[in-house]
Amino acid sequence: MQITANDPSRKSWLNVAKDSDFPIQNIPFGVFLTPENIITIGTRIGDYAIDLGALHQLGYFKDIPLTDDMFLQDSLNDFIADGRITWRLVRNRIANLFDINNRTLQDQPEHREVVIFDVNEVEMQLPVDIGDYTDFYASKEHATNVGSIFRDPKNALMPNWLHIPIGYHGRSSSIVPSGTSIRRPMGQTKAPNAAQPTFGPSKLLDFELEMAFITTDVNHLGESISIEEAEDYIFGLVLFNDWSARDIQGWEYVPLGPFLGKSFASTISPWIVTLDALQPFRVESPKQDPAPLPYLQQKPNNSFDIHLHAYIKPLNGEENLVAKSNFKYMYWTMAQQLTHHTSNGCNVRTGDMMGSGTISGPTKDSYGSMLELTWKGTQPLKLSDGTERKFINDHDTVILRGYCENEKVRIGFGECSGKVLPAR
Amino acid sequence: MQITANDPSRKSWLNVAKDSDFPIQNIPFGVFLTPENIITIGTRIGDYAIDLGALHQLGYFKDIPLTDDMFLQDSLNDFIADGRITWRLVRNRIANLFDINNRTLQDQPEHREVVIFDVNEVEMQLPVDIGDYTDFYASKEHATNVGSIFRDPKNALMPNWLHIPIGYHGRSSSIVPSGTSIRRPMGQTKAPNAAQPTFGPSKLLDFELEMAFITTDVNHLGESISIEEAEDYIFGLVLFNDWSARDIQGWEYVPLGPFLGKSFASTISPWIVTLDALQPFRVESPKQDPAPLPYLQQKPNNSFDIHLHAYIKPLNGEENLVAKSNFKYMYWTMAQQLTHHTSNGCNVRTGDMMGSGTISGPTKDSYGSMLELTWKGTQPLKLSDGTERKFINDHDTVILRGYCENEKVRIGFGECSGKVLPAR
Repeated sequence: MQITANDPSRKSWLNVAKDSDFPIQNIPFGVFLTPENIITIGTRIGDYAIDLGALHQLGYFKDIPLTDDMFLQDSLNDFIADGRITWRLVRNRIANLFDINNRTLQDQPEHREVVIFDVNEVEMQLPVDIGDYTDFYASKEHATNVGSIFRDPKNALMPNWLHIPIGYHGRSSSIVPSGTSIRRPMGQTKAPNAAQPTFGPSKLLDFELEMAFITTDVNHLGESISIEEAEDYIFGLVLFNDWSARDIQGWEYVPLGPFLGKSFASTISPWIVTLDALQPFRVESPKQDPAPLPYLQQKPNNSFDIHLHAYIKPLNGEENLVAKSNFKYMYWTMAQQLTHHTSNGCNVRTGDMMGSGTISGPTKDSYGSMLELTWKGTQPLKLSDGTERKFINDHDTVILRGYCENEKVRIGFGECSGKVLPAR
Repeated sequence: MQITANDPSRKSWLNVAKDSDFPIQNIPFGVFLTPENIITIGTRIGDYAIDLGALHQLGYFKDIPLTDDMFLQDSLNDFIADGRITWRLVRNRIANLFDINNRTLQDQPEHREVVIFDVNEVEMQLPVDIGDYTDFYASKEHATNVGSIFRDPKNALMPNWLHIPIGYHGRSSSIVPSGTSIRRPMGQTKAPNAAQPTFGPSKLLDFELEMAFITTDVNHLGESISIEEAEDYIFGLVLFNDWSARDIQGWEYVPLGPFLGKSFASTISPWIVTLDALQPFRVESPKQDPAPLPYLQQKPNNSFDIHLHAYIKPLNGEENLVAKSNFKYMYWTMAQQLTHHTSNGCNVRTGDMMGSGTISGPTKDSYGSMLELTWKGTQPLKLSDGTERKFINDHDTVILRGYCENEKVRIGFGECSGKVLPAR
């Protein structure tokens, strides 16, 4: 089925600013509370939030096989479970309805009234009921930086890193949507030269610039999928801030990996941009040397050119751009991650989420965490208000943004932001 | 409220064998399919499965505040969310109804007909919709054995181990109920002296003898609980086999912990034995030296005397008892695990599950995994059919059993079993 929704020449009868992340070619999916406090599934064009539940009740999807309450839900899980053909039918239909040349909805002011909201009047929710969340460690630059900082710059990568998309199971319960404040975690830490550990607020609170993809039902327990089919199961992507307390993490993580240093909170952007919408921005992923084992070998053009920016905004201060990275720097692709994940028979379900791990690029200004940007605090960043940061302070807001752009269209992710509150 | 259900002098009008795990003092909770293929929540007395959905429809719980469909569900989550007072009211009521001196239900043959099934006629299901699953590493003997095998017997415990209940996030999707066959996982491994990794069936498939507890809603994100209140949030326990592919785990786990070496399957016993039912079996947990930090210090008697046995049954062979351990050997208690888990503000929800980690005791016959029992395959076990085992073979069934016993009553967990099928 053609993805007619992606037609770059299409214009909408809704006003879309030139630099908007949400032209009619994007059509992401999210969940929001309307001003009347009704929860619904929606999409966004420009600065308008569109209530798909109301559109469906008004009959605008009637020849697409959807249950009556498909969009009147508090998560996208049922819609995602319906699979790619349904996603395409719905995106194509929305593109048609909001096309400037289509007068069906445009000429129904009483319908427009109940379907279209100012995006500032709605309250975005977590878009998915996340079952299992996995975080990968897929940027070679990030893994090399971390290995250099904590171990040996000459043997920065662990022996397995170039052979396996290394990942770990994360905590689903503490994933929150953009805009939710983050409480600085308490925890047990031990300074390198201290005799005993102590318990108190984390002193080394960090962000991690990541993206995450969300899956439809992939496989039954005991089965696996081939790398050729992996992308068919990916619904879309969000921006992801994997908040990290480096001091808690450092003391707890050997030998079983990150635990309370991560599980106090993780933030995602609320609009899921579909893999379909990202198709025009396919690029080559980094060359893999040594070649991966056959089950992880894939055809070319497996990554996406997504510009990623991280900002720190101090209390009453302005936004400071602290990192400029790109999704395409990821060494291990999403298809490799998902294939590897099912290779042991582990079942992946609708609403599962997989994070990329921190996406760092080759240059110092492209590192995706304060740990790397300040080289573990040894090279503090100067902010525009004259203050310095080694890590994240109380009352700082961390904002991630991401977008794809070519000469015809810009597809963005909006923002993924969280303000840090002092420890309790 | 008194736990009258625990009265050891009570007898049931249902026949209960002398050595049954399920006397009227147990009253565990589970989910099953009736012979008519109706899913319901139930309990068990002797070899009878009791349909609580039908009992509720017949009015036997009518003065207890429960929603009409509380037991006509495919998981215990809503019931668990109702909290300890409801759990006690329901257990006490069931104990009364099945007490030999109570004729209310006993004299209603047409009610008994639709409420009581032979346990062999029903099909046990996963009892809970598990949100997040965490596995701890709480047995000092196990951690010492693993450290001795893989690192240095003189420095077997990592520096953090005596200060933190070490844990990691596990995979929820692949948790299955007892009786589900387990497919030997494929995976990437590298022999110590091999130049390159290879992909194929795991050669070192192991079991881990564990228990796991299931929680009700504990805390909001950003809050934590004190150790004094931790047990209030624990609904009950199950037996837990944390199947492990040692060769996959060995190659992948540095630095982010266990991943595909574990996530191919984990098995739980289907009846959740409530913490209330276990009260008569409280014992002291091992003395902790050094004393833990104040947030983890607790009053005495924080563990339970639960005998744990692991068996291997070869195809067409008999059961071989390979390990005899006890829950009381755990160094870090459940209350310490749960308190630590929320100490960073991580929210724990109804239906979350926390595994103990392998529970090994002080003697060689009490080790809870083949890795330890055979000392990484160097000391194979002899089975009664004359074969040897270094790890688990295809077609072997691993069975875990557990029970508490004093001079008056025996409270057991039934069994947690899984048969290994050859890799695909």
